Amino acid sequence: MADLRTQEIKNPIDVAEYLFKRLHEVGVRSVHGLPGDYNLVALDYIRPAGLHWVGNCNELNAGYASDGYARVKGISAMVTTFGVGELSAVNAIAGAYSEYVPIVHIVGYPTTAAQKNGLLLHHTLGNGDFNVFSKMSTQISCAVSLLNHQHEAATLIDNAIRECILQSRPVYIALPTDMVQKKIDGDRLKTPLDITYPENDPEKEDYVVDVVLKYLQAARNPVILVDACAIRHRALKETHDFIVKSGIPVFVAPMGKGAVNETLPNYGGVYAGDGSNKGVRERVESADLVITIGAIKSDFNTAGFTYRVSQLNTIDFHSYAVKVRYSEYPGVRMNGVLKKVTQKLGKLSIQQGPKPDNEIPNDEIKSPEPTITQAWFWPRLGQWLQPKDIVITETGTANFGIWETRFPDDVIAISQVLWGSIGYATGSCQGAALAAKEMGIKRTILFTGDGSFQLTAQEVSTMLRNKLNPIIFIICNNGYTIERFIHGMEDPYNDVQEWKYKDLPAAFGASKDQYQTYRVESKQQVEELFLDKEFSSGETQKLRFVELVMPWDDAPAALKTTAEAAARRNAEASD
Amino acid sequence: MADLRTQEIKNPIDVAEYLFKRLHEVGVRSVHGLPGDYNLVALDYIRPAGLHWVGNCNELNAGYASDGYARVKGISAMVTTFGVGELSAVNAIAGAYSEYVPIVHIVGYPTTAAQKNGLLLHHTLGNGDFNVFSKMSTQISCAVSLLNHQHEAATLIDNAIRECILQSRPVYIALPTDMVQKKIDGDRLKTPLDITYPENDPEKEDYVVDVVLKYLQAARNPVILVDACAIRHRALKETHDFIVKSGIPVFVAPMGKGAVNETLPNYGGVYAGDGSNKGVRERVESADLVITIGAIKSDFNTAGFTYRVSQLNTIDFHSYAVKVRYSEYPGVRMNGVLKKVTQKLGKLSIQQGPKPDNEIPNDEIKSPEPTITQAWFWPRLGQWLQPKDIVITETGTANFGIWETRFPDDVIAISQVLWGSIGYATGSCQGAALAAKEMGIKRTILFTGDGSFQLTAQEVSTMLRNKLNPIIFIICNNGYTIERFIHGMEDPYNDVQEWKYKDLPAAFGASKDQYQTYRVESKQQVEELFLDKEFSSGETQKLRFVELVMPWDDAPAALKTTAEAAARRNAEASD
Ligand SMILES: Cc1ncc(C[n+]2csc(CCOP(=O)(O)OP(=O)(O)O)c2C)c(N)n1
Ligand SMILES: Cc1ncc(C[n+]2csc(CCOP(=O)(O)OP(=O)(O)O)c2C)c(N)n1
Ligand SMILES: [Mg+2]
Ligand SMILES: [Mg+2]
Repeated sequence: MADLRTQEIKNPIDVAEYLFKRLHEVGVRSVHGLPGDYNLVALDYIRPAGLHWVGNCNELNAGYASDGYARVKGISAMVTTFGVGELSAVNAIAGAYSEYVPIVHIVGYPTTAAQKNGLLLHHTLGNGDFNVFSKMSTQISCAVSLLNHQHEAATLIDNAIRECILQSRPVYIALPTDMVQKKIDGDRLKTPLDITYPENDPEKEDYVVDVVLKYLQAARNPVILVDACAIRHRALKETHDFIVKSGIPVFVAPMGKGAVNETLPNYGGVYAGDGSNKGVRERVESADLVITIGAIKSDFNTAGFTYRVSQLNTIDFHSYAVKVRYSEYPGVRMNGVLKKVTQKLGKLSIQQGPKPDNEIPNDEIKSPEPTITQAWFWPRLGQWLQPKDIVITETGTANFGIWETRFPDDVIAISQVLWGSIGYATGSCQGAALAAKEMGIKRTILFTGDGSFQLTAQEVSTMLRNKLNPIIFIICNNGYTIERFIHGMEDPYNDVQEWKYKDLPAAFGASKDQYQTYRVESKQQVEELFLDKEFSSGETQKLRFVELVMPWDDAPAALKTTAEAAARRNAEASD
Repeated sequence: MADLRTQEIKNPIDVAEYLFKRLHEVGVRSVHGLPGDYNLVALDYIRPAGLHWVGNCNELNAGYASDGYARVKGISAMVTTFGVGELSAVNAIAGAYSEYVPIVHIVGYPTTAAQKNGLLLHHTLGNGDFNVFSKMSTQISCAVSLLNHQHEAATLIDNAIRECILQSRPVYIALPTDMVQKKIDGDRLKTPLDITYPENDPEKEDYVVDVVLKYLQAARNPVILVDACAIRHRALKETHDFIVKSGIPVFVAPMGKGAVNETLPNYGGVYAGDGSNKGVRERVESADLVITIGAIKSDFNTAGFTYRVSQLNTIDFHSYAVKVRYSEYPGVRMNGVLKKVTQKLGKLSIQQGPKPDNEIPNDEIKSPEPTITQAWFWPRLGQWLQPKDIVITETGTANFGIWETRFPDDVIAISQVLWGSIGYATGSCQGAALAAKEMGIKRTILFTGDGSFQLTAQEVSTMLRNKLNPIIFIICNNGYTIERFIHGMEDPYNDVQEWKYKDLPAAFGASKDQYQTYRVESKQQVEELFLDKEFSSGETQKLRFVELVMPWDDAPAALKTTAEAAARRNAEASD
């Protein structure tokens, strides 16, 4: 059908082409999601734009995978269909919103005409209201763009992608079927999107830098605490330079694992109040100045709000503000301030912190028991990890155990400490492994619990379909161990059906030479596994799937502390 | 902790006990869902209230299962945890809202104190707002009850359960951890909930009855068309009596399959405009009066809005109104009117309609091809079905194929023609099979597509865990056939990973004597399967799992019609 207005456009291209080319421009190479009749025509534009269609098993998993992909590549895109598809993904999008992960969520909509006429279409609530679902997404998206008019489509697309990156949060783009092939000005693509952070007001920035330096010079035993937002808001370079030049002992919050080169001499371990690693709590809590970078002080990130750090001794760097003791400097982004502070740093007074290693605790070494304990496993893992590994841990024992693992340099750590949706890690692993493949990263390693794995197990199929070769550990401990420690230690609601986990890759259609399975029940078997070249190599072109058997009633120390705090708070009387 | 106010209550019981006892009172016997630390304490009350905890693999599946359970038992209940759990189930709840299925969704919340103080807890968006998720649910629930105050808890619970039943839609109950054990008046339970429909105003009802009778007596060749809301709004008895006494030819819309005894002499088949069964369209569209009962005229229920029935020849019975030609009688519920119309019926002028049988079409019988075609299978299935079977069909070829199956008496048919979320059928099958077991119904039979099955496959594990024995057919046709017929016949986005479906029950931990698998690739093998006593018997204590192989490019005729209409509408230009 000829469109009069296209004649005025010199280089007309279709809306869907524009959208996918913009996504390519900002680094997206694969698109996650599922087909549906309201998005099918749009899917035809993915391959021509130089993108790969993943084809997930379901939309929640696609959302998790997009999250994992974005954490590695900086941004991701997902396509779902109106109502049924998008709502299946709501939990994943909410998680990305909560944890600052940029996902462009494209939803295939019925035609603008059908919407206007309130047709009783499939995938509606039957009430003629086509805005219900986008309204839900408003709560969990930093932009909602309904592409209902040709003339504003390009602007809305550009705006959504820019907001997605700058705010590092999901955006929602509604693409009605009749808009997919509408013509818009392709020449706009010649001007790349401006996705740089706006600079701080220089006068204000200098002022803040001076205040920070003043406290820093005066401090006798300062520490640095790096957290998630340093990663999400892209301040890792500034953070790294500051750590290296200052020499101040540096710690990470659980959500900040992976933000810091843990082989640096001044790296001290994980700080999380009462759940901290060995020697860490004393050092951090005795500091006369705590410099936090990108902090999110949530319950699970602080072992149940057990920080003992006074705001009077604190400087907080955020993406939206800097806070020195109780003085707030809103609108001053950390990146610029950190950079200048590092440049102007004079000689500081430093007291050493603890030096974490991956040594196995003494009583574990002495123990004659063959059982794989949590206390033994996580430091042992640290010895096996390699630089540039991607390590994904699920909410459960894994997410607390990893506090005990000192990483090699350049590890990307993925977990959901704040949102904490189980099943996330397996979906996320698919996305991360795909991003890794695109970037030449060799090993993507997943640790998930048996309970959590059951929520999203079929994404192993998507890994196989996309020829991905992650290393997957299922912690087989007969159920929801983390929940047992909160409430109902032996209650049947914390049990799960015993699966033959190892049989799943084959059932999901893996060809014989495409995968390898293992089961380890003793420390000795773990040692052998880690020594197995084919298993450990980054060159192995096989998905590796391990049943890692651990006791049902064993948990990392930090989990026990946090679980007790959670149980206490859950029982707290109201007035 | 002693609560002063409990001393004034004669028979104090805990809020959670009250809630679950009320659910038991209205017929719930099993509770679906997953644990989470915000609901763990509440779970302790399930067993003592005489209820069974299902323990699903994930929350979306739990939602689908609750939907299936409610369609068989009349109501269901599900427990999820704040944020991550409830949002995973949003799509299932929206589907239940859309299709009028009563589910009580109980969400475990953080303490009222934590909410008041806006604590930065796990499973939040990190912004201190604890109302975001309940606000989303407002759109898809007919009541949202936040149990934040002890003194109103009982009233809110009673109200929510009543609305759930009377409106036949989901309700949302937020149960903060600190409210679970608050004491309320247990004596309230001595008065059962009033869950009867309010009577129509008798004068108004009589008036409508007279109008209806006038048109009915005047009609020369009337027909009846029964649809979903006759089932959902509990008018099946009135509908049945009307059909039997009047002798008028009766048809069902696709969503109304199962509402009518299809062995009655005046049953005529499925009417859905251009997608209608043989002979049906002519008969319905030549009628001078079409009496619809509980109609939902959505696209997939009308083969793409292809009804050719004038409102001038129509009487519509609804739960909220009766409509005669263009005269509306709001607030008059169908049940009372139908009953009186039946009582007062005089002699009517009737012209016979078509008589559907389960005869295989002639060219299928003649065909020498062994391949199992859609045209052959569905009538053949009709010959194998038994009275009281529960038959679940998934969106895809199955949902259209079933139009060709004439049911024995008393079959319960489950599908999602309006909401159409794939993966639904497998989850729903778990809930339906459990309800069937509780009610002594022998066979629950699922037909799902290979593509759809992949979304929610792990619920087969929940069936095994709960010792359920449904008969599961996976239609193996190499992908999303229904989508191929809409757009992208051979495009790779309509392919799926080839699973070894039959290997899944074992991988999900089925013991050897707990299941049986089959693969049928020819009509002959289907015949043998249907003749196999162990397979067909309602007494068999095994889950039966069949790979039903069909061609990738074959679809029921009605699906082709509907898919063409959908593709046309998706391409419809806006102005
Ligand atoms: C979607 C979702 N549902 C429920 C929960 C509650 N939950 C948190 S951890 C957990 C159990 C995890 O068990 P598993 O994966 O086996 O880990 P383990 O602690 O045993 O290592 C549950 C049910 C959640 N966080 N997210
Ligand atoms: C949750 C959800 N995601 C996507 C869709 C779009 N959709 C509708 S039917 C279908 C394909 C179903 O394929 P299959 O189950 O193999 O059925 P077949 O037609 O091949 O029998 C898809 C992807 C949907 N309806 N719901
Ligand atoms: Mg476990
Ligand atoms: Mg299929």
